[in-house]
Amino acid sequence: MKLEDMILISVDDHVVEPADLFDQHLSPEWKAKAPKLLRKPDGTDVWVFEGKQLMNIGLNAVVGRPPEEYGVEPTSFDQLRPGCYDVNERVRDMNANGVVASMCFPSFPSFCGNLWAQLEDKTLAITMLRAYNDWHIDEWCGAHPGRFIPLALPVMWDAELAAEEVRRVAKKGCYALSFTENPDKIGFPSIHDSHWDPLWKACSDEGVIVCIHIGSASGMSFTTMDSPVDVMIATSPVSIVSCAADLLWSQILRRYPTLKFALSEGGIGWIPYFLERADYVHEHHHKWTHQDFGGKRPSDLFREHIVTCFIDDRIGVRLRHDVGIDTITWECDYPHSDSTWPRAPERLMDSLGGVPDDEINKMTFGNAMREFRIDPFVHRSRQACTVGGLRAEAVDVDLSVKSHGGNAPVSEPRPVTAQDITQQLAQVYASPLE
Amino acid sequence: MKLEDMILISVDDHVVEPADLFDQHLSPEWKAKAPKLLRKPDGTDVWVFEGKQLMNIGLNAVVGRPPEEYGVEPTSFDQLRPGCYDVNERVRDMNANGVVASMCFPSFPSFCGNLWAQLEDKTLAITMLRAYNDWHIDEWCGAHPGRFIPLALPVMWDAELAAEEVRRVAKKGCYALSFTENPDKIGFPSIHDSHWDPLWKACSDEGVIVCIHIGSASGMSFTTMDSPVDVMIATSPVSIVSCAADLLWSQILRRYPTLKFALSEGGIGWIPYFLERADYVHEHHHKWTHQDFGGKRPSDLFREHIVTCFIDDRIGVRLRHDVGIDTITWECDYPHSDSTWPRAPERLMDSLGGVPDDEINKMTFGNAMREFRIDPFVHRSRQACTVGGLRAEAVDVDLSVKSHGGNAPVSEPRPVTAQDITQQLAQVYASPLE
Repeated sequence: MKLEDMILISVDDHVVEPADLFDQHLSPEWKAKAPKLLRKPDGTDVWVFEGKQLMNIGLNAVVGRPPEEYGVEPTSFDQLRPGCYDVNERVRDMNANGVVASMCFPSFPSFCGNLWAQLEDKTLAITMLRAYNDWHIDEWCGAHPGRFIPLALPVMWDAELAAEEVRRVAKKGCYALSFTENPDKIGFPSIHDSHWDPLWKACSDEGVIVCIHIGSASGMSFTTMDSPVDVMIATSPVSIVSCAADLLWSQILRRYPTLKFALSEGGIGWIPYFLERADYVHEHHHKWTHQDFGGKRPSDLFREHIVTCFIDDRIGVRLRHDVGIDTITWECDYPHSDSTWPRAPERLMDSLGGVPDDEINKMTFGNAMREFRIDPFVHRSRQACTVGGLRAEAVDVDLSVKSHGGNAPVSEPRPVTAQDITQQLAQVYASPLE
Repeated sequence: MKLEDMILISVDDHVVEPADLFDQHLSPEWKAKAPKLLRKPDGTDVWVFEGKQLMNIGLNAVVGRPPEEYGVEPTSFDQLRPGCYDVNERVRDMNANGVVASMCFPSFPSFCGNLWAQLEDKTLAITMLRAYNDWHIDEWCGAHPGRFIPLALPVMWDAELAAEEVRRVAKKGCYALSFTENPDKIGFPSIHDSHWDPLWKACSDEGVIVCIHIGSASGMSFTTMDSPVDVMIATSPVSIVSCAADLLWSQILRRYPTLKFALSEGGIGWIPYFLERADYVHEHHHKWTHQDFGGKRPSDLFREHIVTCFIDDRIGVRLRHDVGIDTITWECDYPHSDSTWPRAPERLMDSLGGVPDDEINKMTFGNAMREFRIDPFVHRSRQACTVGGLRAEAVDVDLSVKSHGGNAPVSEPRPVTAQDITQQLAQVYASPLE
């Protein structure tokens, strides 16, 4: 396959929420209570909600910067590439990168909308959550039909309400739900608890895939505060193995035979090892742990229920049949620092040597179309969906690397630690609002 | 290669300490203060130290039991296969399994001797630790020269004393030290702290390999207390990835170019993915994290410094050149429930289809001989070191599976959870001493 003939659907990107997020989806009374984006005297931007400054606006939205300026620091919209928060600019950046469709995870409300879930006022919580979902589906994804996979945030505090919200957004054409790796870690019943059954039933009934992003339980996980930040970056994807094991041995997959989960940003190269290990553990231990998979192996269940994805993963591509060729999707991670934008097709092509075209197509778009229920070809010709077709529409997009300044995590060139990053994030709150 | 011609060195087994452990290595005054193994009125055995009952005697020493009776429960020597604690019986069990040499991790003092490290009385601590190391080297390993790789416990609370103990045991021919995945988690400076430099320097000077066993930081790690215990069992090996990343990005490997670490019971199939990820992170992020590997990639450093091992790992064997063929060793995990005893050669052979003899030899014994500095051929002919040669000496070993009763973790056949296992362990303390 030629690079320009590839078709790319990215199942893991991120949106930096724009200031007008709540404008169209709340009554004036509720709008007064909604989070507001304010510019502080020091020039940084911050969401303010219930009198408190929230976590920084875009996590790690560094796309387009020189690598020297990566980090968690972008704290002003002036420091962001407009494609981070402006959907029209986003589509232009997708075109420049040859990506026909994208699923975008949230930034400030956290991956599972924990910002709402932690509110005492549950009426406020459900109102904000629904407004967010409506904005995401109607405005962000609705602006360019066929270019985005809508992704709803879950109601974490009430499984019946969660089911109701899933059914509501499914009616609007949203068939993906963001969840958390481990609800127990953020104060909710664990995935082994029958508490969640109404949610799983709704997702199963409506054909909604449950997407679990790395870092969606309690944020960044550090081995120690003096560890180099690279340790956290290197191990974050594979850390989702705990969630994968929880899912495999939960009753959920056995109870809902058509329900699907996606391990977002988890990578794929470790999965053949994990599946072999899972089968070994089952064979070796099930007689005393009283586990019954109805004659199947854990690896069978995994391949029937779990959708995986990768950014750049040569070993995983080599082992694609051991992962499960029909379970693999691709992601770009725009606008975070792991992203391969705007050279994603080139980087990906490098890993695909010797892979037959039909298998490339499964991994780069076919599996994503089926599992996330999106069909870009309804809106554009197949040729216009290819890397070559999209890039032809984006010849005017400025791809030059731009310095945006901002504060570096350390003042001298010494290894950046977990502590440095944590302090850098904490500084967002340190400067006064007025 | 024929099965009977394989030579097997296992770099990860476990000893259940016998009652006479401290008899030969302490003065009468100190012996009075040493841990004592007592039989309680309910028929269970327990180590008592400083007036307290310690964690159960053998962790998960279930070898020879039917799988229905696996678990953390063996709490009486009557329930253990004698090879767990009797070195002569151990060697017979090794012969029956075709294993010529074995390295044995401790049971009741914990993997890094944390039992001693937590004592307030540091004179008591160092005295007991040295006695333990002397017993392990002189009695356990000394009973059958060439059949065991001596493994010392570290002095966790004082890096100068730790270095001194390393030099002391090296003089006795002990070239392996057990350490912890994460000293920070048990109250000591992290591996990124220069605190440990004297220890690393001593290990480097003396050619002592630092062995890091899974679960050596804070014991078993559960996702939630209601998770099936299988989740913990399945993910424990790969959880050492955090320690591997800590080592890679620490200054230790760069500062001590000949120092070696072993990731004990970590498996190997995930390593090619991890190394690719490590190189990606370095390439992508080093300009802002200020990491300098002197022109090398993290994967280069890994293969120069880190020794890996596997029990049964088809994917890992297939990817042996991506792991690093010179870094791979094999383990049996006797007497724990993941062990393949007494059919380890058969199980291993199943994974080795198509692997050239010289590569099999590297993985099953050659790398272990070099990295752990043991030479069984000094003591026996090469033929006598093979699976066939050893099994010929063990024709009278009773390999029948034996029920030993004991308390099951659950009374009815329902999935066993983390909570069940934790309660089962807690029950050890619940019954009175007298």
